[in-house]
Amino acid sequence: MGATLEIEFAAVPDRIQALEERLRKVENRLAYVEGQSAEDRVTLVVFSGDLDRVLAAFLIATGAAAMGQQVSMFFTFWGLSVLKKDNQLSGKTFFQKMMALMSPDSSKSLPVSKMNYLGVGGKILRSMMKQKNVSSLEEMISLAQELGVRMIACEMSRDLMGIADSELIDGLESAGVGSFLADSLNSRTSMFI
Amino acid sequence: MGATLEIEFAAVPDRIQALEERLRKVENRLAYVEGQSAEDRVTLVVFSGDLDRVLAAFLIATGAAAMGQQVSMFFTFWGLSVLKKDNQLSGKTFFQKMMALMSPDSSKSLPVSKMNYLGVGGKILRSMMKQKNVSSLEEMISLAQELGVRMIACEMSRDLMGIADSELIDGLESAGVGSFLADSLNSRTSMFI
Amino acid sequence: MGATLEIEFAAVPDRIQALEERLRKVENRLAYVEGQSAEDRVTLVVFSGDLDRVLAAFLIATGAAAMGQQVSMFFTFWGLSVLKKDNQLSGKTFFQKMMALMSPDSSKSLPVSKMNYLGVGGKILRSMMKQKNVSSLEEMISLAQELGVRMIACEMSRDLMGIADSELIDGLESAGVGSFLADSLNSRTSMFI
Repeated sequence: MGATLEIEFAAVPDRIQALEERLRKVENRLAYVEGQSAEDRVTLVVFSGDLDRVLAAFLIATGAAAMGQQVSMFFTFWGLSVLKKDNQLSGKTFFQKMMALMSPDSSKSLPVSKMNYLGVGGKILRSMMKQKNVSSLEEMISLAQELGVRMIACEMSRDLMGIADSELIDGLESAGVGSFLADSLNSRTSMFI
Repeated sequence: MGATLEIEFAAVPDRIQALEERLRKVENRLAYVEGQSAEDRVTLVVFSGDLDRVLAAFLIATGAAAMGQQVSMFFTFWGLSVLKKDNQLSGKTFFQKMMALMSPDSSKSLPVSKMNYLGVGGKILRSMMKQKNVSSLEEMISLAQELGVRMIACEMSRDLMGIADSELIDGLESAGVGSFLADSLNSRTSMFI
Repeated sequence: MGATLEIEFAAVPDRIQALEERLRKVENRLAYVEGQSAEDRVTLVVFSGDLDRVLAAFLIATGAAAMGQQVSMFFTFWGLSVLKKDNQLSGKTFFQKMMALMSPDSSKSLPVSKMNYLGVGGKILRSMMKQKNVSSLEEMISLAQELGVRMIACEMSRDLMGIADSELIDGLESAGVGSFLADSLNSRTSMFI
């Protein structure tokens, strides 16, 4: 062994120790970044109850689910109309009855956001979709459920409007804003529709 | 020392050097990922001045702040009505006066996005919230400020509409789209409401 | 060499092997995080065809592009009106003709979302912007194209409404929801406007 090699070997324990320390720091930083990193997840707030906007929400949701994302749709306020199968008046306060009577009683009677003309706009949009073989909203809701899209009714909105379980379609969850945020904060894409 | 062990030791300096180089690359990649990684931050654009949509914005903002997120709300266009305490006409151009006269003069007179019926819709929504002990919009604005939610008035909208400081509630910042983007690009969730 | 130093050297191959294994794990975790990490990218869905909302979309898009982000704007449904230079009726079905006749024939005739008053609102907003030297929508569209903002017309909406290439301004792409999601999932900010 020559002198150079001996010096090289003498430095070995220090170099290893330095490596171990650097690696420990990297592992800690990586763990933090992993915690901040988004999951394969998409979260949508469906606030609107307009047929055109709701269709856009379901196109995004089913598309994302087909691409392997975990998808959550939070239906709140006017968006709750999408999840209704019926309007019931018993057990509602005066204001809740008024709200129910003026709201669509199911996804089939959603208005459009522009040019609604007392419901004609919604019918035209549905006719155009049928002519072009675009799935109907009801077909998209079924497809979303088949693809494992979580459909969640906003608890506060339900409580405010007095909407009973029996007024809603099957296979839903109910949750609050905290649950929405837990999903949204870990999502690659979140949208308010 | 046997022959195998000697060979093992001879490889040590090369293995250490290889490790050092790999670790250097990992550190560089990690620094880049850290730069791209979102902070614990939520950024909302409040474009709408409709009571129902604004309430949704404040529920998300206060919920996120309570969960430890840094929250920024950028109020722009119709959303500026939320921040007004008064309409003043002096110092405004003709169009700005028209705009002011047709806009709500404070958060208390915001319309709802659907079924407004000349203001009745907003009153009904407020009554329903009161019956159900949901915080009023004004309580939510206070809560947001207590929780450290940054409320920012869009400079360009203010300038366009000629809105003076004295027309706005206290504790606000004013900033432009660059400031909004700086927050939004580093946020885990950004929404346009 | 003393006894301690010899023991220290004896541990070297094990310590190096341990380091190599830890580093391999870190590299794998880092590669995963890199895959989840957002690019310098902003993706906007322009669903609305209202002048006020569309202006907000272009302010965000051009601002983000100026800050070095890759920006994609997906124009869908009412938002397609922004990209039109003309309405043509030939080759359209009955419903598509009705839709075309009731929609703006270019970005110059977009309504505003509130206080439109049969088009007066849009004219007032444009006058206010001119007085304050804010770029017009058409100037912002040009600026966006100069800054390399990708403007994409939603294929399904085009097909539904029967919109031909000759009805749209130059320099556009057409794509579906999958293409939108591919961009959005890798974006630091995505918004539905």
